[in-house]
Amino acid sequence: MHIPPVHIEYPDWVESLVDWERGYASDEERMRLAIDLSRENVVRGTGGPFGAAIFESDTGKLVAVGMNSVVRLNNCTLHGEMVAFMMAQSRLGCFSLRSDDGPAHELVTSCEPCAMCLGATLWSGVRRVVCGAHRDDARRLDFDEGPVFPESHQYLEARGIRIVHGVLRAEANEVLELYRARKGTIYNG
Amino acid sequence: MHIPPVHIEYPDWVESLVDWERGYASDEERMRLAIDLSRENVVRGTGGPFGAAIFESDTGKLVAVGMNSVVRLNNCTLHGEMVAFMMAQSRLGCFSLRSDDGPAHELVTSCEPCAMCLGATLWSGVRRVVCGAHRDDARRLDFDEGPVFPESHQYLEARGIRIVHGVLRAEANEVLELYRARKGTIYNG
Repeated sequence: MHIPPVHIEYPDWVESLVDWERGYASDEERMRLAIDLSRENVVRGTGGPFGAAIFESDTGKLVAVGMNSVVRLNNCTLHGEMVAFMMAQSRLGCFSLRSDDGPAHELVTSCEPCAMCLGATLWSGVRRVVCGAHRDDARRLDFDEGPVFPESHQYLEARGIRIVHGVLRAEANEVLELYRARKGTIYNG
Repeated sequence: MHIPPVHIEYPDWVESLVDWERGYASDEERMRLAIDLSRENVVRGTGGPFGAAIFESDTGKLVAVGMNSVVRLNNCTLHGEMVAFMMAQSRLGCFSLRSDDGPAHELVTSCEPCAMCLGATLWSGVRRVVCGAHRDDARRLDFDEGPVFPESHQYLEARGIRIVHGVLRAEANEVLELYRARKGTIYNG
């Protein structure tokens, strides 16, 4: 049986949008990149209104970015956070972003992770998660977030993953509203 | 920034193990394939002790298989269920396995899905999930299953996804024990 192999690549516009060399010092600077990715994904018509990035926590070095790619690549698992994890691990050549002697990594995402992405966060090896829009912001567009409960976040916190909410929430939410105004596909209806 | 694109392909042994043409009539027949995949993955040294498959529910037609590929492909998201979803969607050329006029699909997995895979189950479009080993069986090997609660399964059931537990659990568990005896990597420690 020949099943076409799965290839995951960025859309073309990423190289013109992303400055890979600069340091991203603050949570706000890092979040602005995630939001820029989410907006560009909508404007270019390459996916849903969600962007993410992986940074070294201490240096602010950008390791990888992600953007929702579900419809573009016909793959329900390719939320922005998932693409960011996969690309970061591809770049580092390792299935975990956590190591005893390496730098700590963090996920910055333009919207709170859904159930799938929250699970993957645990497996990814990041030690910190920074969120923009609230899950209720996404739900207003009829995006379901899946079985995420207060206990879910507590479960990650108990395993040493810090979660920060609401960084530039209003800016992140503007992109969700832009997607709604353009009548973008709600693929997790 | 050049990040190597992510390629997801089956290990070589899949074509010799899997009969793509026969119909898989019962839950047990379908589960036996998932368990065979999990065992072969261990014996061949290509990943963790977890296998999965996607079938058309009514006809028993096999659409795609999956096997844990986290270590082989340096990608924390590639649990057996995730590979099965991605490959099924690649084969069908669609980001959902649910359509108004097409056949209903189901996931058969050798072990209960972790938090990530349970979230992806919701997005995948399958209408039924058949599980072999219990999550406690996996936890005995120190595999963490993440934030999955009774409410998580109820959340999926409320959205029309039926979940069946414990089909050939003892056989599925034998593969977990085989992995433990071989001192396989516990990548979600």
